[in-house]
Amino acid sequence: MPERGMLIVLSGPSGVGKGTVRQAMLADDFRDFQYSVSMTTRQMRPGEVDGQDYYFRTKTEFESEIANGGMLEYAKYVDNYYGTPLKYVNQTLDEGRDVLLEIEVKGAMQVREKCPDGVFIFLTPPDLAELKQRLTNRGTDDAATIDKRIKTASEEIAMMENYDYAVVNDKVSLAVDRIEKIIESEHLRVPRVIDRYKGMLKHADQV
Amino acid sequence: MPERGMLIVLSGPSGVGKGTVRQAMLADDFRDFQYSVSMTTRQMRPGEVDGQDYYFRTKTEFESEIANGGMLEYAKYVDNYYGTPLKYVNQTLDEGRDVLLEIEVKGAMQVREKCPDGVFIFLTPPDLAELKQRLTNRGTDDAATIDKRIKTASEEIAMMENYDYAVVNDKVSLAVDRIEKIIESEHLRVPRVIDRYKGMLKHADQV
Repeated sequence: MPERGMLIVLSGPSGVGKGTVRQAMLADDFRDFQYSVSMTTRQMRPGEVDGQDYYFRTKTEFESEIANGGMLEYAKYVDNYYGTPLKYVNQTLDEGRDVLLEIEVKGAMQVREKCPDGVFIFLTPPDLAELKQRLTNRGTDDAATIDKRIKTASEEIAMMENYDYAVVNDKVSLAVDRIEKIIESEHLRVPRVIDRYKGMLKHADQV
Repeated sequence: MPERGMLIVLSGPSGVGKGTVRQAMLADDFRDFQYSVSMTTRQMRPGEVDGQDYYFRTKTEFESEIANGGMLEYAKYVDNYYGTPLKYVNQTLDEGRDVLLEIEVKGAMQVREKCPDGVFIFLTPPDLAELKQRLTNRGTDDAATIDKRIKTASEEIAMMENYDYAVVNDKVSLAVDRIEKIIESEHLRVPRVIDRYKGMLKHADQV
């Protein structure tokens, strides 16, 4: 049986560029991993392909998946369901391949509860990393804008605390680079490899 | 005050090539870090420089450092003391620079107790990773050799469990590559960066 794959969860505040980073990762000739296609009840748009962009399902079908415990995470936005079907994720992990989820923050927290050994990456907007400099440039922003910035930043930092890694999306290629290093490095973590070594020893004893 | 540096501990069974990997890391034009020079009571050898290869001290001086709590870790081998002076490590970390220690397994465990937020990297011999294949090549080793191999491997795996990462030293340049990825990636861990973000927010409030 192959070593189980690693679950990688890419998330972050809306508008941070999760989708673009995910697409760049898929386009990159990086180590083998599988992007987990989401399930949705929203209408298919022109050019979209079922099973590739999304699994398009009816509301009844989606709710029956939920009822059967078939969703790793899901949420409802503007009257439509979006979520990650558990089946494909588990199949791929069992085959020994890494799975990449690119999901909203609420969904990521549901996954964290079910898969604590996943790797949770928070993509941060560059203006969060530059907040201090931006605000120190007095005179460029009025008080209301500054207040709003601080409030948004506080919320984003509060989200970040539930993740393993914080990656700034200052430039897509740089963000992808950082994420790939995280993935490579996580594959070297002792809790992930120790069973392989112990397994070898067990087999060795039987020689 | 700059963000505190990260303590990186490179260790592993004796003979695994820790020194060679450390030298290759220092020769590499990688991100800024400081190698922590060890202190010893052994004789200086021709070509060695005090403060560069080691801090060379008398037995009395070394024992007084121990008594004053000045050693991060130390051990006695063949009647000589070897250890890491705490002062230089702390100074460098306080300056915001990473510190690399290359030490024996026993010393690494002393450091783990004092600095649980360090990054502990276990360098593994390639024959540990290949143990199964090697032993499966029946006929090439006699029973005593196989027994010895299994015993050594068990001990090495037991050591590995106390570390964060396991890096195979199959080729020095590859091992260095892996370690550099680990260091980059550890710098993105939320517990290491969250205070910086929170600090920004605090300053932002005071704008």
